[in-house]
Amino acid sequence: MPAEPSPSLADARRSRADRARQVADVLRRQVLRGAFADGLLPSEEKLAAEFTASRNAVRDALSVLVAEGLVTRVQGTGTVVAGRKYPHGLHHLLGLAETLREHGEVVNEVRAAGSVTPPPAVAARLREPGGGPPETVVYVERLRRLNGLPLSLDLTYLAPDVGGPLLGEDLDHNDIFALIEARTVYRLGGASITVEAVSADPHTAAVLETPAGAPLLMVERLTRLDDGRPVDLEYIRLRGDRLVLRGELTRS
Amino acid sequence: MPAEPSPSLADARRSRADRARQVADVLRRQVLRGAFADGLLPSEEKLAAEFTASRNAVRDALSVLVAEGLVTRVQGTGTVVAGRKYPHGLHHLLGLAETLREHGEVVNEVRAAGSVTPPPAVAARLREPGGGPPETVVYVERLRRLNGLPLSLDLTYLAPDVGGPLLGEDLDHNDIFALIEARTVYRLGGASITVEAVSADPHTAAVLETPAGAPLLMVERLTRLDDGRPVDLEYIRLRGDRLVLRGELTRS
Repeated sequence: MPAEPSPSLADARRSRADRARQVADVLRRQVLRGAFADGLLPSEEKLAAEFTASRNAVRDALSVLVAEGLVTRVQGTGTVVAGRKYPHGLHHLLGLAETLREHGEVVNEVRAAGSVTPPPAVAARLREPGGGPPETVVYVERLRRLNGLPLSLDLTYLAPDVGGPLLGEDLDHNDIFALIEARTVYRLGGASITVEAVSADPHTAAVLETPAGAPLLMVERLTRLDDGRPVDLEYIRLRGDRLVLRGELTRS
Repeated sequence: MPAEPSPSLADARRSRADRARQVADVLRRQVLRGAFADGLLPSEEKLAAEFTASRNAVRDALSVLVAEGLVTRVQGTGTVVAGRKYPHGLHHLLGLAETLREHGEVVNEVRAAGSVTPPPAVAARLREPGGGPPETVVYVERLRRLNGLPLSLDLTYLAPDVGGPLLGEDLDHNDIFALIEARTVYRLGGASITVEAVSADPHTAAVLETPAGAPLLMVERLTRLDDGRPVDLEYIRLRGDRLVLRGELTRS
C-alpha cells in the first residue's frame, strides 16, 4: 500500500522550527565529535548555505544548542563551543575511571559506605554465594568528578562477600569494578542495563552542581560475576550535559 | 591506601533528601518492572518500614516519582502507577515497531519524505555503493505513536539507493529497517549509537505532546549494511517518560 504523496523537505509549509531541529541535530553531533577543532562554529550565513536553511532557522538551531549549554555566543566572535561531553561505552562493561582515563582523573567523593539491611526489592535482585538473597549488603554512594567537574552520582548495592573487602580500600580513586577484580577472587561477567532520561530533582541537581530540572541519564546496572551470580546493583545519574553513552548494535 | 572512616547509611547526618533519592530509585525501577501488579503502591507506612526510612523521606521519594509522571496520588486510595515506559532494546538492532510489537501498534505520521541535497556533515557520514559520499539523500521525518501516544520523533537520512525504493511504500505502518530488508536487496549489519539526555525545546515538546523542558533520550544511530557501508543516519528523540533503553554488557 503506497503512502500518500508526502510533503517534501523543501516544502514551504515545512516550518522554520522543523528546519531548526534538523540543523540543531546535525550541529550537536558535530560539536560532540569535535568537528570544530578551533572551537568556533561557522557563521550563520555559512551554516545557512550548508544546510540550505534560512538564517532564522539557523539562529533558532543555535539557540537550542545554547540552551543545552553546548555552545555560547560571543559578541564580535560568533558561536563557540562551550560544553564538552565525554563518551561512556555501552558496549563493554567498564568503570567510569577506566573509560575516561584519556580525558583526565576521576575522583570520587564517598558520601556513604557501609553495611546495611537492604530493602526487599534490592535484596531480591542480588544473590549470596549459596544462591539466596543477601540479608545485608554493602552500600556505597559516590559523587564522581572528572577534573573537578561533577559527572555522576552513583548509588551502589553489593553482595556482602563482594563488597565487604572493598570497604577498607581507596574508594576515592578507584572504580568499584577494578577493586573487585584486584581485591577479591571474583571476576566480573556481564551486566544488564536500562537507560532513562529524567529531570534532576532540586536536591540531586544541587549535588551535581547543575540546574534543577536539568536532563540526566538515569542508568540502572545489575552486574554479574563470570558464574552468572548478580552481585552489584547500581543506580547511576549522569549529567546529560557532560556525558554521552556510546555503543554498537548488531542486527542478528 | 585505606579510605578515611566513611559515614554510614544509618548516620543521622545523612539527609532526608539523600534517603529519598535511594527510595525513589528503587521504587522507580519497581514501577517500571511491573512489581505492583494491581497498580497500587504500598502505603507510606509500609514503604517506610521496607526501606527503613522516615515517612518524610518516603513522601519526598513519591513526590519525585509524581513529578516524573510515573505515579499519581489518589485521595482515599494512595499512590497508583500512572505512567508506563516501554523497553527498547539496545542489544540488537531493531526498529521501534519490531521491538514494541507485544505492546501494541506503532503508527507513523510521515511529516516529510523525499530526496534532498544533504548538508555536508550528513553526506560525510553516509556512503554510495561506489564508496563516495552521496550527492542526494532520502530524508524521512516521522512522528511515531504507540496506541496513539507519541513516543518518538525520528529524522532519517538514507543513501539514495537504499532510501529511494522506500518512498513509494507504506511508511505509516512499517519500520524503515523492515522495508529495507523487504524491498531492497540489501541486508542490515550493525549500527553505532550514541545516547544523550536533552530537554525538549518548546516546538519539539509540542510535537511530542509533552511539556517544554521534558527530558528526552536523544539517540543518534548510524546503521551499516552487512558489507559495512553506512547507509542510514538517524536522529531519534524518545520521550523520557515513555521509553527506556535496555541492553546487555560484557566485561571482556
